[in-house]
Amino acid sequence: MSAKVVFYHAGCPVCVSAEQKVLNIVDKNKYNLEVVHFGNAKNRITEAEKAGVKSVPALLIDGEVLHINFGASLDDVKKIVG
Amino acid sequence: MSAKVVFYHAGCPVCVSAEQKVLNIVDKNKYNLEVVHFGNAKNRITEAEKAGVKSVPALLIDGEVLHINFGASLDDVKKIVG
Repeated sequence: MSAKVVFYHAGCPVCVSAEQKVLNIVDKNKYNLEVVHFGNAKNRITEAEKAGVKSVPALLIDGEVLHINFGASLDDVKKIVG
Repeated sequence: MSAKVVFYHAGCPVCVSAEQKVLNIVDKNKYNLEVVHFGNAKNRITEAEKAGVKSVPALLIDGEVLHINFGASLDDVKKIVG
């Protein structure tokens, strides 16, 4: 059984830079890592919001949100892709 | 060869919560993970500052800083432990 980790981002420069690092460090044997780009999956924004995501990039681990650096607020993401 | 990852924190509630998640997800086979608590290692603050750490908790990966959520600014940490 592997727990799920979701990396939410919106393609911003801060997101892309963080993504490289996060994808590298996550233990793929323990975690099932999904990368969600809101530009390609705007239907996932509501789910992220409910989970507590306020800005991107963000990592959702076992239901807890880690906001990593600051690329854009979720509100701004919605204005652009929504 | 394993690259080095340093998790800097200051024992704040936000730090402790993030620490649990970060320690779990990091692939220990690929990365040598060090946890630095400034309360016990105030001599490491300068090194963190030079690396670009502005707030805790923060994760330093291959020379790049990921600020994770926001517990306290490094300036405030210095006031308390410095």
